Amino acid sequence: MEKKPLVAILVGSSSDLSYVEAATKVLEEFEISYEVLVASAHRTPEKVRNYISQAEERGIKVIIAGAGLSAHLPGVCASLTTLPVIGVPLPAGPLNGFDALLSIVQMPRGIPVATVGIGNMANAAYLAISILALSLPEVQNKLKAYRKKLAET
Amino acid sequence: MEKKPLVAILVGSSSDLSYVEAATKVLEEFEISYEVLVASAHRTPEKVRNYISQAEERGIKVIIAGAGLSAHLPGVCASLTTLPVIGVPLPAGPLNGFDALLSIVQMPRGIPVATVGIGNMANAAYLAISILALSLPEVQNKLKAYRKKLAET
Amino acid sequence: MEKKPLVAILVGSSSDLSYVEAATKVLEEFEISYEVLVASAHRTPEKVRNYISQAEERGIKVIIAGAGLSAHLPGVCASLTTLPVIGVPLPAGPLNGFDALLSIVQMPRGIPVATVGIGNMANAAYLAISILALSLPEVQNKLKAYRKKLAET
Amino acid sequence: MEKKPLVAILVGSSSDLSYVEAATKVLEEFEISYEVLVASAHRTPEKVRNYISQAEERGIKVIIAGAGLSAHLPGVCASLTTLPVIGVPLPAGPLNGFDALLSIVQMPRGIPVATVGIGNMANAAYLAISILALSLPEVQNKLKAYRKKLAET
Amino acid sequence: MEKKPLVAILVGSSSDLSYVEAATKVLEEFEISYEVLVASAHRTPEKVRNYISQAEERGIKVIIAGAGLSAHLPGVCASLTTLPVIGVPLPAGPLNGFDALLSIVQMPRGIPVATVGIGNMANAAYLAISILALSLPEVQNKLKAYRKKLAET
Amino acid sequence: MEKKPLVAILVGSSSDLSYVEAATKVLEEFEISYEVLVASAHRTPEKVRNYISQAEERGIKVIIAGAGLSAHLPGVCASLTTLPVIGVPLPAGPLNGFDALLSIVQMPRGIPVATVGIGNMANAAYLAISILALSLPEVQNKLKAYRKKLAET
Amino acid sequence: MEKKPLVAILVGSSSDLSYVEAATKVLEEFEISYEVLVASAHRTPEKVRNYISQAEERGIKVIIAGAGLSAHLPGVCASLTTLPVIGVPLPAGPLNGFDALLSIVQMPRGIPVATVGIGNMANAAYLAISILALSLPEVQNKLKAYRKKLAET
Amino acid sequence: MEKKPLVAILVGSSSDLSYVEAATKVLEEFEISYEVLVASAHRTPEKVRNYISQAEERGIKVIIAGAGLSAHLPGVCASLTTLPVIGVPLPAGPLNGFDALLSIVQMPRGIPVATVGIGNMANAAYLAISILALSLPEVQNKLKAYRKKLAET
Repeated sequence: MEKKPLVAILVGSSSDLSYVEAATKVLEEFEISYEVLVASAHRTPEKVRNYISQAEERGIKVIIAGAGLSAHLPGVCASLTTLPVIGVPLPAGPLNGFDALLSIVQMPRGIPVATVGIGNMANAAYLAISILALSLPEVQNKLKAYRKKLAET
Repeated sequence: MEKKPLVAILVGSSSDLSYVEAATKVLEEFEISYEVLVASAHRTPEKVRNYISQAEERGIKVIIAGAGLSAHLPGVCASLTTLPVIGVPLPAGPLNGFDALLSIVQMPRGIPVATVGIGNMANAAYLAISILALSLPEVQNKLKAYRKKLAET
Repeated sequence: MEKKPLVAILVGSSSDLSYVEAATKVLEEFEISYEVLVASAHRTPEKVRNYISQAEERGIKVIIAGAGLSAHLPGVCASLTTLPVIGVPLPAGPLNGFDALLSIVQMPRGIPVATVGIGNMANAAYLAISILALSLPEVQNKLKAYRKKLAET
Repeated sequence: MEKKPLVAILVGSSSDLSYVEAATKVLEEFEISYEVLVASAHRTPEKVRNYISQAEERGIKVIIAGAGLSAHLPGVCASLTTLPVIGVPLPAGPLNGFDALLSIVQMPRGIPVATVGIGNMANAAYLAISILALSLPEVQNKLKAYRKKLAET
Repeated sequence: MEKKPLVAILVGSSSDLSYVEAATKVLEEFEISYEVLVASAHRTPEKVRNYISQAEERGIKVIIAGAGLSAHLPGVCASLTTLPVIGVPLPAGPLNGFDALLSIVQMPRGIPVATVGIGNMANAAYLAISILALSLPEVQNKLKAYRKKLAET
Repeated sequence: MEKKPLVAILVGSSSDLSYVEAATKVLEEFEISYEVLVASAHRTPEKVRNYISQAEERGIKVIIAGAGLSAHLPGVCASLTTLPVIGVPLPAGPLNGFDALLSIVQMPRGIPVATVGIGNMANAAYLAISILALSLPEVQNKLKAYRKKLAET
Repeated sequence: MEKKPLVAILVGSSSDLSYVEAATKVLEEFEISYEVLVASAHRTPEKVRNYISQAEERGIKVIIAGAGLSAHLPGVCASLTTLPVIGVPLPAGPLNGFDALLSIVQMPRGIPVATVGIGNMANAAYLAISILALSLPEVQNKLKAYRKKLAET
Repeated sequence: MEKKPLVAILVGSSSDLSYVEAATKVLEEFEISYEVLVASAHRTPEKVRNYISQAEERGIKVIIAGAGLSAHLPGVCASLTTLPVIGVPLPAGPLNGFDALLSIVQMPRGIPVATVGIGNMANAAYLAISILALSLPEVQNKLKAYRKKLAET
């Protein structure tokens, strides 16, 4: 990945990295550069703050943040940037991601998180791609081609 | 609104229009052009299809769709375009929007809907703005100013 | 199956076909002709539209549609036909079909989906049979015989 | 209503009659004859049994049963007839019909109830009409006309 | 078991018999005579009616009824007798007995079901024993001894 | 009420007394003597303990305990006596009695609480009556008469 | 309040201040000094960070944080201090605080939030008092006196 | 463990002891003395009462109580002491700890339980440590060191 990353993917702990692959595979198919960071809203709040505050000027366009349980990471990211933040509730723990879904989606007025389905990292990537496609015609074309292929399979 | 609309807001019935105002007020503050359409995924599927299929070539960049109960409208929009679709679960009916939330957010792989909180049309607008801001520097500036003001109030 | 199909069974993806067997077995016991189609409300909306719009004139009497997660397929079918549509919430994903149940059953006024239990494809078939039995005396007799046998086992 | 009734509507208590009107209005618009009975699966099980056992030979084609809370009425009806039974969870009590929904829809193999949305008596009527329309061409025509009108409003 | 049964245990299908053992073991420890019947509120409503209507005159004092999913059996029993009916929600199906719990406990005014925890057949037996103990001093003594032992373990 | 009470009704706070009337009315119609106590499992645990430990020797046969929220009162009563304890989840607080239902019904092995519907104090009384009727023929007769009347209304 | 505050109460918006009074009344009865701050985890993250980072050296012993919806404030506070943080889910929005409860209580390993009941600011104060009482004998005495009074009322 | 215990950990049954280890490991790392007791709010209420009533004078500072299902143990402890009580909902049974969570957290006014996440015994220990750290500077230092390490891992 030599290109400057356009998408940042954050998860709260290294045990969440297994979910990330579903997103990175999609991004790679669309040749979208990305970087992955393990940083916790609770255990390493400064790391999150430093990374997110500089994301825009480093050229990041979209942030994907996945978290389980209390799942504050996406909302904390959203509070630190004006870039679009996509939240992925991860199906960790005894409530299977239902807690994370409510924690991520019910953001207060002014600081939205674009929430996708529980554990659906692939859809976080597709949503990021649809946002990037607005100003990258070649990505838009690939997305349309992907959809056509989807319809044909 | 003389400018070509950048944002389309769809709701399933005219009784949902009361929620829309929370979004249009925000868009107007940011001087983002928009249009509002009442069209139902179930009662008027062709109207939805015709409108959404032409949205991109008409210059629409982001689609906001609000629906209550079974709440298929956002997902149906997403299946008809590669533009980013923001879904707003509306708190209609005896389950207060909880049904709409699950119906909107749990989309299958490949066709994401960017879901915001139940009844939170304002956040749908702010999310649309953060997406538009990626390629409209003046909107980005306004968004940063809004966030600063938010922090000061 | 040489006879013109009376029942159409749709599921959103080929991974849902394992559920379909519980319905087809029942239909076969009642010698009801059927056909099975994999078509997604989101990935292949045109395929769904084409198939459902022509179902009635092709002689289909009842449509069974199964879907998990956001589960829009039954509602989308119902919006495209006046034939009775039976919806089967499939227990896919972390919420085990609870999301699909709410998404399928809470349809807006005017476009009902006849919803059966989560994962209960067999009951979708029995419901289709009870509808067909209204005008097919031999099916009605078989249904009564089945019920008697059920009571005796 | 001089014609022999085609649809029977049952509710468990006279306090549920307020919901019934939404169904009878629809049936009257379609000129479908019906009758309404207050009979409880728990308080008057014999009345339910007697009525339902004779429904078919009296010419009833479809049964609509509405109930709140434990909501056994639709399932009890279904166990006593091979006619299609449509269940309507009524939003009574502190759980607002959520209990009734699960109680009605999760029927065991072999005895389905065609469940519609919580409190959605109108949709129970539309579902009954779509079933009757299979063998009554004039009803089928009215249903198609209704759908067209729905799309135009 | 030569003695006339005091407790009747009903479950809806033979696949539920595995749960029954937890109750019968307890009843046997307390030397309470019982009988077990497989009878379904939906598949064999007459069998349930015949059995329950005659239970009191046959000397049955308490009825335990276990059911999963829609779980109408306990309520149907309660509607057919004035004997106390204990309902046990069985953890069958994708909602793990949560549906059965609501279906059993939320009975309408006048026809209560004494509901115990999901899958907790043992507690149904202990509750039956506490009811029988009111008029059987030796059972009361055994129950007090059991509680003491419970406290000592 | 000159007669020694057969039924004890406990609620956790005087604000719960409004629910109790639904039970006492029923008991009075059946001429069952009762007494009502306000005592909290948490605020006045000793009062609960003293009262419940002496209930049996004072002639109490059945205990009804109503509580909202965490709703420990019925379970605490059950842990202090071998008399049957009927628990009534009260619809207090933001979750409308759903919390109380789970807290009351899910008792551990060996210490059951006979749970009735949320807020359904009348059914707690009817359940107590069905238990008392096992050894009081005149109460059994009244209960049968009540059921007949219920069926006729 | 001349004394240096021992307890800090934070809520996310001024509309939440109505809940705070239930806590401050209790603290005042126990003569515990406190201060109240409106600061949002999302709209004013720096204000939260600055305030919480300095809380310990300013003499604060316990932090109470109330929030509704996504309700990240208590967890964000907990991530910024080693003082005990008490979280109060506020019953705002269509899910009545159920979302806030899950968001507050399900914190990841290492960063706990001591969660109290939905909307129960009074209990947050009582919990803070029980913590302070460990090292303030006069507060311990008052707490014991309060409990005695509670038992007597 | 020669030192007088500062923390008491109670669980309702020996089958819950497997959860306790997650707490004791943390306490041992912080060199906090503790003791573990198996005592049930329902099966052995006197044992709980005797132990908790004497806890304070024996030098215990914080009580951790874990329970599943109806989960009354933490609340019962809180009713018997003015020491802070931390409640841990254990993921036992078919509802996976969701019942225990509501049962523990929704305590009535005046008797709070500091609730942590479902099954999160480790966080109960960390919360106890943050409370003890208020008066034990060396524990405070260790806690700060732990947090720093957490941030670095």
